[in-house]
Amino acid sequence: MTQKSMPIVDFRSDNTGRASPALIAKLAEVNEGTAAGYGTDEWTALLQKRYSDIFETAVRVFPVSTGTAANALSLGAVAPSHGAIYCTEPAHISSSEANAAGFFSGGGRLTPVASTHAKMAPEALLATIGSIVLGNAHYSQPAALSITQANEMGTVHSLAEIRALTDIARRFKMKVHMDGARFANALVRLGCTPAEMTWKSGVDILSFGSTKNGGLLADAIVVFVPEIADLLAFHLQRGGQVWSKGRFGAAQLLAYVENDLWLANARAANAAGARIAAGLRGIPGAKLLAPIEANMVFLDLPGSVMDGLERDGIRFFRRTKSMARFVCRFDVTDAEVDALLASLKRHCGAVATAAQ
Amino acid sequence: MTQKSMPIVDFRSDNTGRASPALIAKLAEVNEGTAAGYGTDEWTALLQKRYSDIFETAVRVFPVSTGTAANALSLGAVAPSHGAIYCTEPAHISSSEANAAGFFSGGGRLTPVASTHAKMAPEALLATIGSIVLGNAHYSQPAALSITQANEMGTVHSLAEIRALTDIARRFKMKVHMDGARFANALVRLGCTPAEMTWKSGVDILSFGSTKNGGLLADAIVVFVPEIADLLAFHLQRGGQVWSKGRFGAAQLLAYVENDLWLANARAANAAGARIAAGLRGIPGAKLLAPIEANMVFLDLPGSVMDGLERDGIRFFRRTKSMARFVCRFDVTDAEVDALLASLKRHCGAVATAAQ
Amino acid sequence: MTQKSMPIVDFRSDNTGRASPALIAKLAEVNEGTAAGYGTDEWTALLQKRYSDIFETAVRVFPVSTGTAANALSLGAVAPSHGAIYCTEPAHISSSEANAAGFFSGGGRLTPVASTHAKMAPEALLATIGSIVLGNAHYSQPAALSITQANEMGTVHSLAEIRALTDIARRFKMKVHMDGARFANALVRLGCTPAEMTWKSGVDILSFGSTKNGGLLADAIVVFVPEIADLLAFHLQRGGQVWSKGRFGAAQLLAYVENDLWLANARAANAAGARIAAGLRGIPGAKLLAPIEANMVFLDLPGSVMDGLERDGIRFFRRTKSMARFVCRFDVTDAEVDALLASLKRHCGAVATAAQ
Amino acid sequence: MTQKSMPIVDFRSDNTGRASPALIAKLAEVNEGTAAGYGTDEWTALLQKRYSDIFETAVRVFPVSTGTAANALSLGAVAPSHGAIYCTEPAHISSSEANAAGFFSGGGRLTPVASTHAKMAPEALLATIGSIVLGNAHYSQPAALSITQANEMGTVHSLAEIRALTDIARRFKMKVHMDGARFANALVRLGCTPAEMTWKSGVDILSFGSTKNGGLLADAIVVFVPEIADLLAFHLQRGGQVWSKGRFGAAQLLAYVENDLWLANARAANAAGARIAAGLRGIPGAKLLAPIEANMVFLDLPGSVMDGLERDGIRFFRRTKSMARFVCRFDVTDAEVDALLASLKRHCGAVATAAQ
Repeated sequence: MTQKSMPIVDFRSDNTGRASPALIAKLAEVNEGTAAGYGTDEWTALLQKRYSDIFETAVRVFPVSTGTAANALSLGAVAPSHGAIYCTEPAHISSSEANAAGFFSGGGRLTPVASTHAKMAPEALLATIGSIVLGNAHYSQPAALSITQANEMGTVHSLAEIRALTDIARRFKMKVHMDGARFANALVRLGCTPAEMTWKSGVDILSFGSTKNGGLLADAIVVFVPEIADLLAFHLQRGGQVWSKGRFGAAQLLAYVENDLWLANARAANAAGARIAAGLRGIPGAKLLAPIEANMVFLDLPGSVMDGLERDGIRFFRRTKSMARFVCRFDVTDAEVDALLASLKRHCGAVATAAQ
Repeated sequence: MTQKSMPIVDFRSDNTGRASPALIAKLAEVNEGTAAGYGTDEWTALLQKRYSDIFETAVRVFPVSTGTAANALSLGAVAPSHGAIYCTEPAHISSSEANAAGFFSGGGRLTPVASTHAKMAPEALLATIGSIVLGNAHYSQPAALSITQANEMGTVHSLAEIRALTDIARRFKMKVHMDGARFANALVRLGCTPAEMTWKSGVDILSFGSTKNGGLLADAIVVFVPEIADLLAFHLQRGGQVWSKGRFGAAQLLAYVENDLWLANARAANAAGARIAAGLRGIPGAKLLAPIEANMVFLDLPGSVMDGLERDGIRFFRRTKSMARFVCRFDVTDAEVDALLASLKRHCGAVATAAQ
Repeated sequence: MTQKSMPIVDFRSDNTGRASPALIAKLAEVNEGTAAGYGTDEWTALLQKRYSDIFETAVRVFPVSTGTAANALSLGAVAPSHGAIYCTEPAHISSSEANAAGFFSGGGRLTPVASTHAKMAPEALLATIGSIVLGNAHYSQPAALSITQANEMGTVHSLAEIRALTDIARRFKMKVHMDGARFANALVRLGCTPAEMTWKSGVDILSFGSTKNGGLLADAIVVFVPEIADLLAFHLQRGGQVWSKGRFGAAQLLAYVENDLWLANARAANAAGARIAAGLRGIPGAKLLAPIEANMVFLDLPGSVMDGLERDGIRFFRRTKSMARFVCRFDVTDAEVDALLASLKRHCGAVATAAQ
Repeated sequence: MTQKSMPIVDFRSDNTGRASPALIAKLAEVNEGTAAGYGTDEWTALLQKRYSDIFETAVRVFPVSTGTAANALSLGAVAPSHGAIYCTEPAHISSSEANAAGFFSGGGRLTPVASTHAKMAPEALLATIGSIVLGNAHYSQPAALSITQANEMGTVHSLAEIRALTDIARRFKMKVHMDGARFANALVRLGCTPAEMTWKSGVDILSFGSTKNGGLLADAIVVFVPEIADLLAFHLQRGGQVWSKGRFGAAQLLAYVENDLWLANARAANAAGARIAAGLRGIPGAKLLAPIEANMVFLDLPGSVMDGLERDGIRFFRRTKSMARFVCRFDVTDAEVDALLASLKRHCGAVATAAQ
């Protein structure tokens, strides 16, 4: 069998997947007549209402083009240039966004807090804050806490874990940002409401991701604090993040939640994650580096096994020499999962045999 | 006839219009299988090739979400924080983009140059540059020249006019940016090639607008100088302007030029402008504030006439007490144009009668 | 008489002059024993008290190294990146500080307001604010008003003139900054109190200049609003403007006001200005471009007269081809003034003769 | 004996000390006649020449007001907003300068590299660089390496150690910054030339500190690469760091090196460090946390010993619960050193006795 004719088995990322066709259909649907520009159209107004229903409180929703924009502009609206933004080392804002948070906050400092499976422990946060002198201008001052949910190692904070962190933030007068690039994956994992996972747990501003979960060209910033929203509106314009044809931004985010599409997509992706988890129990050589709680799988694998997977046409991300990451798209198929498991089993078995 | 049942007559802006359906169809078309993220997909590669053909040189094309992003990130890539960016007073970057250019250049200064019909005269540019001391650190130093084509008063620079300005820029070692929010409208007006209107006339970097001309959710930055492109790639990531599902950004910009769609759209919009121009000859009271060379019409009108137009359900932009702006969408209808002309004729006539 | 042996006749600027020796003596005086760093020393504490007495209210005083730092950091503390800072065209912050205000405010926009003799008329300010749409994110939003006192054309705002401008600022929720590079010159001109010229007239934050009036290496920011001061303290540290050996910053600013030295210096400089004004009455060819109200003289002079002055060894600033600026240092001598007047008389007379 | 009458025993920092009187005398000396402004005076010109002699190459010297300004503006001139600046965790730019480097570089990222005694090992630097993907815009790209000499734990890099680090920087096209807040202390320790410790070892730009070594109100940036200097000149003006009365900035830096004053001061401070080192050999309970190679001493001490020192009137910095820092000023006396050693001996002895 040649590489060419092989079916796709793609676990590189959830952003390699398709968009849910409903989003594109919605673009066609709203493409009638004229509409006022820059977010003053009726669909953007509807978006405010719809998301306020979902979050059970009056929220302000700002469509933006990317998750990096959502994160960096959120943080720029709550952290001053002399501020510290506490996050974990693997946090996407720290590891993968090219200084965007520093740029949009005018120099604000990402301050890494020790973590396990990309979860910050409250004591670690306290210790990091404790290493500076509050109010002393030599030190970056506590400004914001950023929590990723589900996080970069694929684990999901419980509501109690979120609350423990946000309580500390509150104590030091910090604002709380949630990077929800995989918000829906976490939501269906916890089985709680969007409100419970955000403002009821102390979150002030949310990067509401859709892209990785069947989205197209828009994510959103959802703001729970009116004053932050007022400022953000100016920052977004100045940041080149306000579509003049705003109806097409809003349309995507409306279609995304219509008929619970977002939850269905997330359930599908998480189910694939669970299917991998189940399959891995029979492959002792594939060592999990973090529990599988959403749609991501991190394995400690020998280089030879990774080579073998690649030869088999399995696509994934070789994060380090011994760490492989597999992400389940919302539209990943059982066949892909099974192909991955079969390939893993074969190559891990070969390693075990050779070691005997 | 009630307002409700009236057909739409909308001249507010060209961004109130629809997207060309072909763009949405293209999104559906590329929505198959998986694709590598962040602009490493095959459609983004094709985009480079396709636009290099159009511009008759190897260009770098970066899809971005908005025209403000295109302008501000272009200027931020060529102007340092102590630099002066020369533009006209009505330039969109100066009048309408919320300090975005200053933000993305770290403080770079928009320096207004006197203009007629939003066209800068070479002597005016020279005089403005001449008011500072070159190399003296007290003064913002010449960094960039920004020309809007077609410009904010709806007039179009001839190639000779562009060249006269870019020659001065070159003499002072400035980079030249073109704000092409209405690039296609200018192109079909001049009947020249994209290459002639840009790099062959001294332009280094172009905000290539599609939104106002049937686009959907993407404009582009087209770069003619490789070193600027290399820097810009980092700036865009840090600026939150790199879609992870890059194929959907590229797809729009591919569909936009396929079968010369962009030129057809621009011709339609300009034709409507010309139809208004012809009609205005019979309405002496409607005084043109600038020649109609593309799809925009600026009229000096009494407040009572503007009130009358609004009562008739005509939508337009009351820019000042006496200045009304009418913009022709690519999908504006002859019926809309005729309704506008009829309403203008009636209300201007009433004014003339009253004045006798 | 050769140029070499000529006595100095220097009207280039008031920053070409000496420092008052008392300031240097004070440095020596405080140079005993050890002192806590970064503004936590006893002299900085004394400075707060002393200036609070002078301003008849509890002020916060921050020594900074330059007037540009005082201005730009003041504005950066009150204007956000999407804000407009209203000032006159000739304002030093606009004409001479290399985009510092834009840099420190993260992109904030200097917005020129029409002026006469570098004084803004209230109607001009209103008209400029009126040209944007309040609350509409496309436009730089009113954030700060900056008034220079005495201003860049050497004229002095009356208290009523200041109040008329600050009332407008207040109406639009702007903060008011005063650039007091020549604060003392204005103060002795008006014969009012520092309190009257600042917070009692609606000023929130003051660049308190000493350098041009016998100062050495420090100016100060004087803040009348506690919340601004709290923020500024962080901005200054982050801006590299907090001397670790703070006592030497404070010492200069203490000596500057001791025994009313600052007022004496300003009176001397203004007296020289008045002496020039009196002398000019006998020189019809030297046309004043603004009334002489402090220590600066602007003359409309033919190039040949300027050449003549230079040949006579008179130093001054050729601002344009026909505008010459003469600034009186606190330590300028009557001999210098008389030499200037004699030279002016001679060369203007020659022009008049030639014209007959 | 009451606290009041106790002689000062002050090891808090070297910035609590006096200025060398020669610097103040120099201010008085240059305070004659008039001088051109903003660094165009004769003393600033002389400064260029004098420092070029000292560094054995044509350098550009820019007086600035603080070490933070020197560091942050140096880094801002070599690191773009998407750049990574590699430094150690305890580096002053990272631990104590309130995000100044991030602010002046528009978001540039301080990236900590593991260190021992605040010295980075070449392998640690390589490993940190190796954790990102070069040229991939998601990651902060290598832009600058910052080495502190003498460093924040009081140790001094050998020339070979500097070279090993700068060789790596060169390989990744980074610029090299040296934070020389205690440059002279390192210089006399190594017994090498200023040239050897800087450009001959691969340094591009130097924060040349004087404040901590008998300076007054100025440090300097010394630039070895002309293009960086050209850019920096603009950045400094825009940064509010160009004194209009430039002669007084230059004068301090001239006096600082006249008759090798700087070296004499550094030798005195280091000698006090050595005297402490010798004395500590007889105090087993006072555990050194880093070798004493310049004028700083870090001890691991029980809280009770720190309390005892404070009761004895010894001033020092309690950096953590168990880490005490003692810094020797250039003007520290043998009596102070002996008082410290005596107090340490007494309180450590008490702890030892209690433990038996």
